[in-house]
Amino acid sequence: MRLTHLFTKTSKTAPGDEVARNAQLLIQAGFIHKEMAGVYDYLPLGKRVLDNIIQVIREEMDGIGGNEISLTALQQKDPWVTSGRWDDQVMDVWFKTKLANGTELGLAPTHEEPITRLMKSHIHSYKDLPVYPYQFQIKFRNELRSKSGLMRGREFWMKDLYSFSRTQAEHDAFYEAVSQAYLRIYDRLGLGELTYKTFASGGSFAQFSHEFQIVSPVGEDKIFVHEPTRMAINEEVYTDEVLAQLGVKREDLVEKTAVEAGNIFTLGTRYSEPLGLMFTDEAGKSQPVIMGSYGIGPSRLMGLIAEQFADEKGLVWPAVVAPALVYLVLIGEGEVQAEADSLYEQLQAKGIEVLYDDRDERPGQKFADSELMGIPYRVTVSARTQASGQYEFYVRESGETSPLTRAELLAKLV
Amino acid sequence: MRLTHLFTKTSKTAPGDEVARNAQLLIQAGFIHKEMAGVYDYLPLGKRVLDNIIQVIREEMDGIGGNEISLTALQQKDPWVTSGRWDDQVMDVWFKTKLANGTELGLAPTHEEPITRLMKSHIHSYKDLPVYPYQFQIKFRNELRSKSGLMRGREFWMKDLYSFSRTQAEHDAFYEAVSQAYLRIYDRLGLGELTYKTFASGGSFAQFSHEFQIVSPVGEDKIFVHEPTRMAINEEVYTDEVLAQLGVKREDLVEKTAVEAGNIFTLGTRYSEPLGLMFTDEAGKSQPVIMGSYGIGPSRLMGLIAEQFADEKGLVWPAVVAPALVYLVLIGEGEVQAEADSLYEQLQAKGIEVLYDDRDERPGQKFADSELMGIPYRVTVSARTQASGQYEFYVRESGETSPLTRAELLAKLV
Repeated sequence: MRLTHLFTKTSKTAPGDEVARNAQLLIQAGFIHKEMAGVYDYLPLGKRVLDNIIQVIREEMDGIGGNEISLTALQQKDPWVTSGRWDDQVMDVWFKTKLANGTELGLAPTHEEPITRLMKSHIHSYKDLPVYPYQFQIKFRNELRSKSGLMRGREFWMKDLYSFSRTQAEHDAFYEAVSQAYLRIYDRLGLGELTYKTFASGGSFAQFSHEFQIVSPVGEDKIFVHEPTRMAINEEVYTDEVLAQLGVKREDLVEKTAVEAGNIFTLGTRYSEPLGLMFTDEAGKSQPVIMGSYGIGPSRLMGLIAEQFADEKGLVWPAVVAPALVYLVLIGEGEVQAEADSLYEQLQAKGIEVLYDDRDERPGQKFADSELMGIPYRVTVSARTQASGQYEFYVRESGETSPLTRAELLAKLV
Repeated sequence: MRLTHLFTKTSKTAPGDEVARNAQLLIQAGFIHKEMAGVYDYLPLGKRVLDNIIQVIREEMDGIGGNEISLTALQQKDPWVTSGRWDDQVMDVWFKTKLANGTELGLAPTHEEPITRLMKSHIHSYKDLPVYPYQFQIKFRNELRSKSGLMRGREFWMKDLYSFSRTQAEHDAFYEAVSQAYLRIYDRLGLGELTYKTFASGGSFAQFSHEFQIVSPVGEDKIFVHEPTRMAINEEVYTDEVLAQLGVKREDLVEKTAVEAGNIFTLGTRYSEPLGLMFTDEAGKSQPVIMGSYGIGPSRLMGLIAEQFADEKGLVWPAVVAPALVYLVLIGEGEVQAEADSLYEQLQAKGIEVLYDDRDERPGQKFADSELMGIPYRVTVSARTQASGQYEFYVRESGETSPLTRAELLAKLV
């Protein structure tokens, strides 16, 4: 994309009403816009980052047998009353609203109830199981406070996957497959080394659930890490009994601050029984379906990645999620511009996303914007590089600069 | 996708609580699920159709200079109070809700106010104009009645594009470019011959707006069509004065029933003035930005296409939006299955989407499901086709059947 075509502007100063570094930087760089605390618009560059994160998650969900769907935000009261979660005291993050005729509705903070009810139209026999629908959807949570930018939203993007299985063994195998898929996702997003699969409290049907905690100074959670096995225990279940059960000793664990970036739950028959999602087994007997739910927040991951890798010059995106791989700086006009134009066309034709800074701006402003936006590679075309026959190639993360011919540049990027 | 992997089931009977043919068929074929009137979940096949429609629109919006963004559903009151549209009497489709602290919020039925306010951070000078942000977003409209399936939703998908221009001439040129892009969209979706660009009432800043009306027996609008020029006039502005102005005679116009599938509006300074979206022109003078808004509903189009092309056997999708191009029916096992598997793999590898009916089901059920789902081509592999060396190739729209070798089939599809 040519920057003359991009409507967003960077700002010299961070917004005064944000305390979270991710929101400060993302707003300053023109990636997002704040509507209110915890509610952000995605501008063109921010939308690309979000879409890139979503695509990584989608590939991994499809890889383990997921079927993509899209459920609604508007929720009827009935299935939530049946499950016991309509009450604002039980589920304290509801946004409620009303139909014109006065009927009460809610905005879904999660989707166990509607997906369980929906599945009653499609699951009847053991032959119809197992199934794994998932979605990327906007969730609404009426949080009392929301000061962490994209890390705790009132309106935010969630990937939620639900599993419907015949037996506990079938459920357990899929639960483990999701766990492996989640670890691949964090790896692909450049967060692998910071991520710990963490034992957390389990609810009615399992002793534990698992969280994927990413070590970060701005985390709201405290975890105890066992480095040799790369597992961790959430503070909420950090007891002598649990330590003994997991076979680890208190002295081998290190306390860390972390952000919960995903969680996986065994739901058992917590929803299928009250909502009547049954199947006929091989023996002809009616049984409740065994369920699990698996969440991961693409917008929270975007905030986390922004916050984690940023430096004093601005954002630093891993290539897989960056809004473009290359920031092309044009300094000059005439033949220099023709050279930059032709490089831009060639890179785009080869499928490499380029932000082409063809603006009538000072070089210093262009360099500063490329740093603030955090694009992995910067290529400068100027009268000087024209004379030498080598572009200036700069790596955002390392700060290294090297001269490269077009052939060398293409060999590096394609 | 293998049908053994698809969790949705077709149903022999239409749902009893739907009067709209599009909803009846889409539910029966397992494309959507009804949460409540006007609120539908998209199941795997339905999500594919919706995504295909969105992709056609996206390509055309990018082609005229659009910048894709994503705005929020949750809305603060202020900008809407300023524009005069917060009042439920003025805008009668609001869903309202509240933050935990009691602050009133709304769910966006449209986005003129937030996008105008957002642009104040990015538009300052004539150099920053023109710009054309657009989005695909879930809109909420608290309709009193909603009986038309996907054609009139309470929660539905909308593409909304907004233009920000310096001069009326610049605005007019873009307005015409959008109009042309819209006509290309309806053409690509197979609706071109049914679509009329229709004069409708214009609001404060233009005598007319334009609607794109698609002739349909289930339409809620009445239009008067001038066939030689392919233009039409909406009943609401069908007066002698307008006829004289447009240079057409009453006797040359034919009355038709139609569905509004898109609309384009000149907003002028209706929102930029009250909300203070100004720019400094070349002479250094502060001017309000000239705006336009351009809507098209992907979910309504999905309902319309479903309804328009369906026959007594079920849905009939144009190839460009179909959830798959080919429905592959396996009848048999052993070598027959190996042949079908290998054809499936080869077609998928060549980028052709295939629904592979590998279920343990009667052939009659497989054929009926392929008809109900409306997949453009059906290919049957059986002991008989194995013996002849030719698959049975069936075209859903025409009902024609012909024997094809694998080479002939590939030549036709790739």
